[in-house]
Amino acid sequence: MNGSLFRSEIREQPAAIERLIERRDDFAQVADRIAERAPDAIRLVGHGSSDNAASYGVYVFGLLPGWTAFRDSISLATYYEADVDVSRSVVLALSQSGRTPDVLDYVERARARGAFTIAVTNEPGSELGRAADAVLPLEAGPEQSVAATKTYTNQLAALALLAGAAAGRGDEIAGALGETAARLAGTIPQLESAVGTIAVQFAFVGRMFVVGRGLEFATAREVALKLTETCRVAAEPLTATDLAHGPIAALDPLFPVWTIASRDASLPAAVDAAARAREAGATILASGSAASEIEGAAYTLSVPDAPNKLLAPILSIVPGQLFAAALADAKGLDPDRPNRLSKVTLAR
Amino acid sequence: MNGSLFRSEIREQPAAIERLIERRDDFAQVADRIAERAPDAIRLVGHGSSDNAASYGVYVFGLLPGWTAFRDSISLATYYEADVDVSRSVVLALSQSGRTPDVLDYVERARARGAFTIAVTNEPGSELGRAADAVLPLEAGPEQSVAATKTYTNQLAALALLAGAAAGRGDEIAGALGETAARLAGTIPQLESAVGTIAVQFAFVGRMFVVGRGLEFATAREVALKLTETCRVAAEPLTATDLAHGPIAALDPLFPVWTIASRDASLPAAVDAAARAREAGATILASGSAASEIEGAAYTLSVPDAPNKLLAPILSIVPGQLFAAALADAKGLDPDRPNRLSKVTLAR
Repeated sequence: MNGSLFRSEIREQPAAIERLIERRDDFAQVADRIAERAPDAIRLVGHGSSDNAASYGVYVFGLLPGWTAFRDSISLATYYEADVDVSRSVVLALSQSGRTPDVLDYVERARARGAFTIAVTNEPGSELGRAADAVLPLEAGPEQSVAATKTYTNQLAALALLAGAAAGRGDEIAGALGETAARLAGTIPQLESAVGTIAVQFAFVGRMFVVGRGLEFATAREVALKLTETCRVAAEPLTATDLAHGPIAALDPLFPVWTIASRDASLPAAVDAAARAREAGATILASGSAASEIEGAAYTLSVPDAPNKLLAPILSIVPGQLFAAALADAKGLDPDRPNRLSKVTLAR
Repeated sequence: MNGSLFRSEIREQPAAIERLIERRDDFAQVADRIAERAPDAIRLVGHGSSDNAASYGVYVFGLLPGWTAFRDSISLATYYEADVDVSRSVVLALSQSGRTPDVLDYVERARARGAFTIAVTNEPGSELGRAADAVLPLEAGPEQSVAATKTYTNQLAALALLAGAAAGRGDEIAGALGETAARLAGTIPQLESAVGTIAVQFAFVGRMFVVGRGLEFATAREVALKLTETCRVAAEPLTATDLAHGPIAALDPLFPVWTIASRDASLPAAVDAAARAREAGATILASGSAASEIEGAAYTLSVPDAPNKLLAPILSIVPGQLFAAALADAKGLDPDRPNRLSKVTLAR
């Protein structure tokens, strides 16, 4: 059946998170090695879903140990060979396969220039794993669907574990991750039955905006990527604020807007963005723990609150994954094997 | 006439750059104040076109003085009040109007926490100008079209001037900017006559990807924003590499791909991305100084080489601006006044 790998890997996510938590000591040890260096910055690099996870990393490092973290420019190092001092930086290189060529190239250059480099990968024995100073496993188990799901959620969990350990709150975050996995397991069946009837109504939609803010911008990016690669929808992720800085002019009733709404400090921005989109006539689909607070949403896909607000994106992504599976079905597409994609992307 | 402000402001860009160059001493003074602090990072913040200019800033600071620069998360500071040490950072806050609420909020918080804050704005007397430690003018003159053009190019020029001065190469960059303005003035008339016949063939296009890499990713973002806000096309900017990490699966012959190709180290990535998109059946529009190297492009909009490769994006953006003006015309839309947008965006 089309998308059977994709669906089964979505369902495996709670168990995959549990497996990762068992590796918490590895994360604590690497966190100690990072802290010893008193880094001035955490440089996150990755492509596709890994880059979306990096967006989340900016927040967990900023909010747990209070460290500056950013998605670094890969091309600045690899194409232009910029002479930037990275000797006090830590590099977190995210790659499911450990084979993404320019991430590997970036890590080799950064390590040669004195950065402490860490590969976060589902294949610790990969070239990337061997090139870095340290390697952290994703423990997602084999991922066979081309469209990533459990490697993405385990990247989020890995970043949270590492940032938690760096903040001296490793046990607390590991415990909250376990509870998050349990809540995820409890909600997947009902979400799976909810998405089908909604998705079928989107079968002729060619374009969408996916709006999230703060911690949930990573979710907006990942939902948009799933819709683009598995359903061939031109889905663009936007922050709630950026929607108002131009793109809102493109909206009309045939241009749906997916709003990610979680119960945190950025919720008012998501509520405002959805209200603006609705005024423009757009159909609103709201997801997240605060989906019910999005007034006038035509469709809602709610998830439970996370035990710690920082972990909400691990729950928030799942409606997007399941919706993509259902919409691909409705369109007769196979999310396990999207056109022109392979599991390991070797493009630079 | 629809779009007459937009068009006249596009044509004013060379003169606006010349005005900015006359303020080079101000940039040199601020560069000295930055260098005295030996900053560990340049934090760039802005929304919309200003955020696109910030993408360019990452490269000019990385390549001229060799400083770490990144687009900082505004929401991390303003919504979540992250306790991150910014005392050795320099903040460059980009806002045409100087009134963008969360950029102002970000600057006030960063300054209170010890960062050296610089407002780069077309309104030096604005609230943002007064809130920052230093202010640099854009000198674009009044911009009346809602869709930004000359304030964007002058933001690029301002970032190049500041980074050049910080690298002790202020005179060289100012001279190259003057020559860039002259080449721009020479090419605008022929581009203006070229875009019309191409744009009319895009009148029914609802979605596009705009691909750029490295320095030209800023251009890809800004071209996509112009097409979205003035022509109501769902145009998504992607790096050449990210196209291969998922979005390529969405392409078909009705999904055009605009490729920005400049003659620099990232050109092979742009060439490869266009080849992949063409294999997927997409119609390719190529622009930039190396547009002619994109094989199989159905349309090309070439610009002259910049006198310094770092300044290429100042030339590369103009085909996108003029194409947007022509396409808006073809669709009966008014780029001076897009739906639901106003010149100053007060959304947070």
